[in-house]
Amino acid sequence: MAAEASLATAQRSLGDPGISYPLWPPLTAGCPRTSTDDVSYPVEVDYAYDRADPALFSTGGGVGRGSGLDRWAPLLPPLAAPGLAEGGTPLIELEPGVFIKDESRNPTWSHKDRLNRCTTSAAVAVGAPGIVVASSGNHGASAAAYAARAGLRCVVIAGPELPPAVDTFLNAYGAVVLPVPWEARWPLMRQVVERTGLHPVSNLTTTHTGHAFGPEGYKSIAYEIHLELGVPAAVFVPTGYGELLYGVWKGFTELRRLGLTDRLPRMVACEPAAAAPLAQAVRKGLPAAQVTVEPTEAYSIVSPVSGYRGVVAVRDSGGRALELTDDQLAAAHGELARAGLWTELSSAAGLAGLRALGVGAGAQAEAEVVADAADFDGPVVCLATSSGFKDRGVGARTTEVITPEWEVVCRRLRAAGIRD
Amino acid sequence: MAAEASLATAQRSLGDPGISYPLWPPLTAGCPRTSTDDVSYPVEVDYAYDRADPALFSTGGGVGRGSGLDRWAPLLPPLAAPGLAEGGTPLIELEPGVFIKDESRNPTWSHKDRLNRCTTSAAVAVGAPGIVVASSGNHGASAAAYAARAGLRCVVIAGPELPPAVDTFLNAYGAVVLPVPWEARWPLMRQVVERTGLHPVSNLTTTHTGHAFGPEGYKSIAYEIHLELGVPAAVFVPTGYGELLYGVWKGFTELRRLGLTDRLPRMVACEPAAAAPLAQAVRKGLPAAQVTVEPTEAYSIVSPVSGYRGVVAVRDSGGRALELTDDQLAAAHGELARAGLWTELSSAAGLAGLRALGVGAGAQAEAEVVADAADFDGPVVCLATSSGFKDRGVGARTTEVITPEWEVVCRRLRAAGIRD
Repeated sequence: MAAEASLATAQRSLGDPGISYPLWPPLTAGCPRTSTDDVSYPVEVDYAYDRADPALFSTGGGVGRGSGLDRWAPLLPPLAAPGLAEGGTPLIELEPGVFIKDESRNPTWSHKDRLNRCTTSAAVAVGAPGIVVASSGNHGASAAAYAARAGLRCVVIAGPELPPAVDTFLNAYGAVVLPVPWEARWPLMRQVVERTGLHPVSNLTTTHTGHAFGPEGYKSIAYEIHLELGVPAAVFVPTGYGELLYGVWKGFTELRRLGLTDRLPRMVACEPAAAAPLAQAVRKGLPAAQVTVEPTEAYSIVSPVSGYRGVVAVRDSGGRALELTDDQLAAAHGELARAGLWTELSSAAGLAGLRALGVGAGAQAEAEVVADAADFDGPVVCLATSSGFKDRGVGARTTEVITPEWEVVCRRLRAAGIRD
Repeated sequence: MAAEASLATAQRSLGDPGISYPLWPPLTAGCPRTSTDDVSYPVEVDYAYDRADPALFSTGGGVGRGSGLDRWAPLLPPLAAPGLAEGGTPLIELEPGVFIKDESRNPTWSHKDRLNRCTTSAAVAVGAPGIVVASSGNHGASAAAYAARAGLRCVVIAGPELPPAVDTFLNAYGAVVLPVPWEARWPLMRQVVERTGLHPVSNLTTTHTGHAFGPEGYKSIAYEIHLELGVPAAVFVPTGYGELLYGVWKGFTELRRLGLTDRLPRMVACEPAAAAPLAQAVRKGLPAAQVTVEPTEAYSIVSPVSGYRGVVAVRDSGGRALELTDDQLAAAHGELARAGLWTELSSAAGLAGLRALGVGAGAQAEAEVVADAADFDGPVVCLATSSGFKDRGVGARTTEVITPEWEVVCRRLRAAGIRD
C-alpha cells in the first residue's frame, strides 16, 4: 500500500527556531547560520500540522504492521526508500506501571531502523548513489540494510574494535566496511562525502548534529506509546548523541500540538558514567559538551561529545540526565534477561536509569534521588534499544561438553537448585 | 489485559482422529494408543469451534501487538504463562506476489517463541518446577526466555557443537546449559524428566512428536497471514521436525472450518538435502522416516528423523517436500540479505524452496519442476524463521583495520564500484 504524502514543509534551526530552510536538500551538517566553530546546532523538520488528520492517531487509523513507518507518513519526511516494516514494537510490562519498549523487534534488531528509513529516503530523494555512515554497531548495520533494500551502495566507516559479530552483520548486507583508527573516522567520513557524493547518514560536525531527517523517525516511538498507553509520566532513554531522546520528545510535543493530549512526559537521558557529555552540558547550562571517555562495555552509547537536541529534550520536558556505571547497566541487563528480554548492555541503560532513581524492586538509588521518583504520576516507559547479540562478549564463553552420566548431570542441576 | 478463555477441549490423536484424550495432562510423548516401537504419532488440541467468535479474525478484532498470542487465546491452549509479545510479525513483499514472513521479529528472534508460549504455559498449568528442552539453538533459547519470564527453571540439553553465540544467549536467561554428545541428548532428556519432574518442551519419542501444545502456537502465523493477505496459494516452510509446517497448516484449516475462507494453501516443506526425512517419508508413503545426516551448515533444521505432522500437512494440502542443498540455501540467504533481511541460513530454506520451483528472479529450477510453479494461483509466503546472528560462522571473519589514507580507501571503494 502506498504511503500518504508527507506534510513536511521546511527545515527549522534548533539554534534559532526563527530560522528555517527549504526542505531540500537535507542539511547534513546542521544549521549553517547558528553554528560556530565550537558548537553545531542541528535542524529538524517542520510540517503543515494544521493539515494533519487526527484520525491518524486513533487505534484503527493505521494500516497493518507490515507497513512500518508508512503509517505515520504525513508527519515524517517523504519516505522515498522502501521500508522493512520498521517500528510497531511492543510495550512489555515488567512490573506494574513499568513498561519496556522492546526495540530489538525491528528489522535489524535495533531502534536505528526508524532513523535509517528516513535518512535512506533522503538519499534516494536527492538521487545519491549510496550512503556513508560512521558507526561500529547498530547504526551502521541498519544503514547497510536500508541501503540494500533501496538498491544503494553503503560504506560503513568503523572503529578499530568493531565487534566480530557486527562485522559479519555489516558484510551480510553487502556494505563496504572500512575499520580505521578512532580519530580518523569523522575526517574520513567527510572526505568520502566530498569525493564520492555518497549521502551521509551520520554526523559530520564538531558537536553532534547528524542528519536533519533522522530523529524524525524516532517520533513514531512516541506515537506508538501513545496509542497503547497514552502519555507516560516519564521516558527513560539510553543516550549517546541524543537523537533518540529528542525524537521521542518531539513526537509527544506534536501529539499535544495536535490536541490529542495535554500531557507531556519527562525525558530522562541515560548515559554511561564512562562518558556523559549531555549530563555535563545540562549541569553547566551549555548547548553541548566534550568529555574524556573512560572504559565501558556500553559501546553503543559511549561518545565524547553530545549534541544540542539532548539538552532541549531534558530541559523542555523537566527531565534529567543520568550517569550510569557499568555495574548499574549490568544489573539492569541481568534484570531484563531474567524477565525474558536479552538486550544489549547499552540498551539496559533505560531501566538502569529508572532503578537509579529508586523506582521498583531493582532500585539502587542514593537517598537524594528517591524523592524524585515519587514525582512520576503514572506509568513510565524504558526504551530497550537493541538485541543482546550485539555485545562484544557474545560467544566469548563456551560451556564445556559434559559426560552424560547422571552423577555429573545431577551435580549441575543441584547447583542450580533443581532437585531429583 | 487478560486473555479470553481458551476453548480447548481435548487432545486428539493424529494417528487415529477418532481417539481423543482429556486436555490435561498434556501428552508429551505422543499418542500412547496408536504409537508403536517404530513410529510415534503426535496428538493435537481440539477446540469447541462452534463457540469461537468469528470477530476474532477481523482486523479490528484483536488487541494491540503488545498482547502477543493472547489475541488468539480462544483457539490456543490455556495461556497460563506470561507472554513476551510473541508473534505479530510483518509480511514483507520481496517481489510482486512473494512475501517474507519475518519471524526474526519475535522476543528471542525466532518463530520458536510462538511454540514456547504454549509449552511453558502447559508447564505452569501442571505446576511443574521448570522445563527441560533438548536443543542447540532457537528452541532452547526461546524456552529459556519463557521460563525466565514465568519464574521457572530451565535446563537446556545441547549438542556438543553449540554455537558460541547461542551459548551466551542461553546463559543470559539463566538456563542450565548441559552440552553432551549427540547420541546422549534424548536419553538424558528422558532421564531429567523422570527424575526431576521438569516439564519436557521438546521431543521424547523415536519419531518426532514433541509437545502436544507446541504447534498450536504456530497457528497464529496462519491467522496473521490471513488478516493481512488472505489465504496465499502456497506457504514455503523451513522444515526440521515439521511442527511449524503442521501448525501453520492447521491454522488455515481452522479458518476454513470457521467459514472465513474456502481456500487452503499448498504447504511446501523445505528441508536441507543433507537430511530430508520428511521428503523420504512422503516419497515412500510412510508416517515418518529416518535418514543419515550429511554435513550441512543449516543446523537449525537438520534432523535424522521426521514426524507424522509433516506428512499430514504436505499430503492434505497437496503440497511438496523439497530438498535444498547448502548452495541453494546460501543463494536464498544472500538474496534475502540483499533485500535487507539477514536471516539464519536455515531460515532461508523457505525462499530457497520457492526458487527451486522456478519462481522469480533467483530461480534455480530444473525443467521438471517449473510447470509446478505455474500452479500457484495467487501470492505465496515464505517463512523466514530466525535472525542471522544465530549462525555458527558469525564473528568468524574480521575485516582488518586499514590506514585511513585516501589511496587505500579509494582502492576499496573502487573495488566495490564506488567512484570518486
